[in-house]
Amino acid sequence: MFTGLSAFPITPFKQETIDYKAFQGLVDNLASANVDSICAIGSTGLYPYLTREEKYNVVKLAVNHAQGIPVMAGVGALRTYDVLKNVEAVQQAGVNAVLLAPVSYQVLNEDEVYGLYETVSHEVSVPICVYENPRVTNFTFSDDLYRRIGKLPNIGAIKIPGSPFATFAKNSMDNSASKGISPTLASNSEGARRLSSLREIMPANIAIGVSGDSFGAAGMSEGCDLWLSVIGGIFPRTVTRIIDAAHSGNVVDAQAQSQALSGIWSMFARNGGGLRVVAAAAEILGYCETPSLPAPFLPIAKKEYSELEHIITELSLS
Amino acid sequence: MFTGLSAFPITPFKQETIDYKAFQGLVDNLASANVDSICAIGSTGLYPYLTREEKYNVVKLAVNHAQGIPVMAGVGALRTYDVLKNVEAVQQAGVNAVLLAPVSYQVLNEDEVYGLYETVSHEVSVPICVYENPRVTNFTFSDDLYRRIGKLPNIGAIKIPGSPFATFAKNSMDNSASKGISPTLASNSEGARRLSSLREIMPANIAIGVSGDSFGAAGMSEGCDLWLSVIGGIFPRTVTRIIDAAHSGNVVDAQAQSQALSGIWSMFARNGGGLRVVAAAAEILGYCETPSLPAPFLPIAKKEYSELEHIITELSLS
Repeated sequence: MFTGLSAFPITPFKQETIDYKAFQGLVDNLASANVDSICAIGSTGLYPYLTREEKYNVVKLAVNHAQGIPVMAGVGALRTYDVLKNVEAVQQAGVNAVLLAPVSYQVLNEDEVYGLYETVSHEVSVPICVYENPRVTNFTFSDDLYRRIGKLPNIGAIKIPGSPFATFAKNSMDNSASKGISPTLASNSEGARRLSSLREIMPANIAIGVSGDSFGAAGMSEGCDLWLSVIGGIFPRTVTRIIDAAHSGNVVDAQAQSQALSGIWSMFARNGGGLRVVAAAAEILGYCETPSLPAPFLPIAKKEYSELEHIITELSLS
Repeated sequence: MFTGLSAFPITPFKQETIDYKAFQGLVDNLASANVDSICAIGSTGLYPYLTREEKYNVVKLAVNHAQGIPVMAGVGALRTYDVLKNVEAVQQAGVNAVLLAPVSYQVLNEDEVYGLYETVSHEVSVPICVYENPRVTNFTFSDDLYRRIGKLPNIGAIKIPGSPFATFAKNSMDNSASKGISPTLASNSEGARRLSSLREIMPANIAIGVSGDSFGAAGMSEGCDLWLSVIGGIFPRTVTRIIDAAHSGNVVDAQAQSQALSGIWSMFARNGGGLRVVAAAAEILGYCETPSLPAPFLPIAKKEYSELEHIITELSLS
């Protein structure tokens, strides 16, 4: 299941409770677009904000409407005790994998994070996608930690930040403007080096996924196994086309398609990430009502809604 | 209640559940040391790690054993909905104030944080202590945000990071070694400037508290109203003596007493903050068993335990 597009839908809210009907609509869209997998409650699906019962309900709904597409769910929590309970709940709901970030309030150290994965890896009956997101967890994985985690059972994939792929994205566009992409340049890029060092550290059966949507095209072009995508949770066909281009070796086209979305990437940057922007997109497309995120989140500015609506129409995002 | 020492005890665990008897022992110690207030479930008391029922139970126990000393409790949560439920629970348990940090997973923006305080400030029946801790919340308060929050009802205090007081701490020690502290130097320090700018921004009735224990002596010497203290949760008499020195104008003595604890401050820095170190101290003093923190937290290294035990004995910390 750790291949191609893993689509991360939002969990839409309506008056501070989950709008299950709206969520079902989002899942139906992903299923009809035939994405490779769905992460029902990833960071964008607000897993840490939901009670265990809400997690179960959302995941169950995703499984029921995924039309056989594998479903993953975020199980991270501050206490290992709660992570294990979350695992139990989402496994009961029928997930095919769990996404586990070292969620923290008091910042964790490396041995504590290792201990978390060690405990959970022996209790799951589905593969774990290890989730590195320093921005929300205040924790960066060292190579040594990846090496130790790679030896644990049931580790299926790692989800890494996309920033090492920034240079590839930039260089390939600079090159494509004149003489096409230079293969040497690409294989010497920071992203390629990061991927190859991770492949050396981790067993071959562990997939490596890219996150941070503006780096997705570059990550897939450089050889990541999957793109764990926020924008793919609302515009799965748009993202699939980029991945198809990258997979067929047409990396310049993949980059050009990603570059065409620069208005979206800027909007993500201006609004603290993808969450609020894709929530607005889901509202614009009629999946849910405004505001679709729970307090204290606020909708993006009216001007941003207009711009987003314009981009969606202009580029026929779908 | 926002004056002098606000002591933050840990919430001790035993086999992954709260050790209420041990917590009661910690509160009894604080009450007998006659601290100015007790924050029953602050960051050190792991409020985000507890269920609402656990929060209620811990706070109720603190109120029952505080011998009339005011009790505060952390109410922060990812969703405003849960913050309000937490407020309700701890008010029912009898708190005199609530501590509210803008807890986040998805990073919040300024309007969202303001909205959180606006909503909660209209629902509480006790004063709020606004809690700025960029390290655990990924959010830094701007002066403009403080200005807006200062106009809301029921704001009793703000708890600011101690880092601006670092220069005072350093300068006063450098000076005291030779010719005693220079009053000019002190009032021109970064901490004094920060305090005076905050006093201009906030209404006079809002207390300003310092956190980050290594900066506590400097913060109190420069004019903070209270010291919200992790180490004060286990060694209240030691901290009270420092505050007494600062309050009686003997800032060189206050700094010297804080400097004598440099072994503790280094230990805090080496172990990701005060939490794991004060938990170890509570274990050493017999309040609770090892491990006293829930997974994924790990106890500090054996070598650190020995050093801590040595410091406690050597300096008669109490």
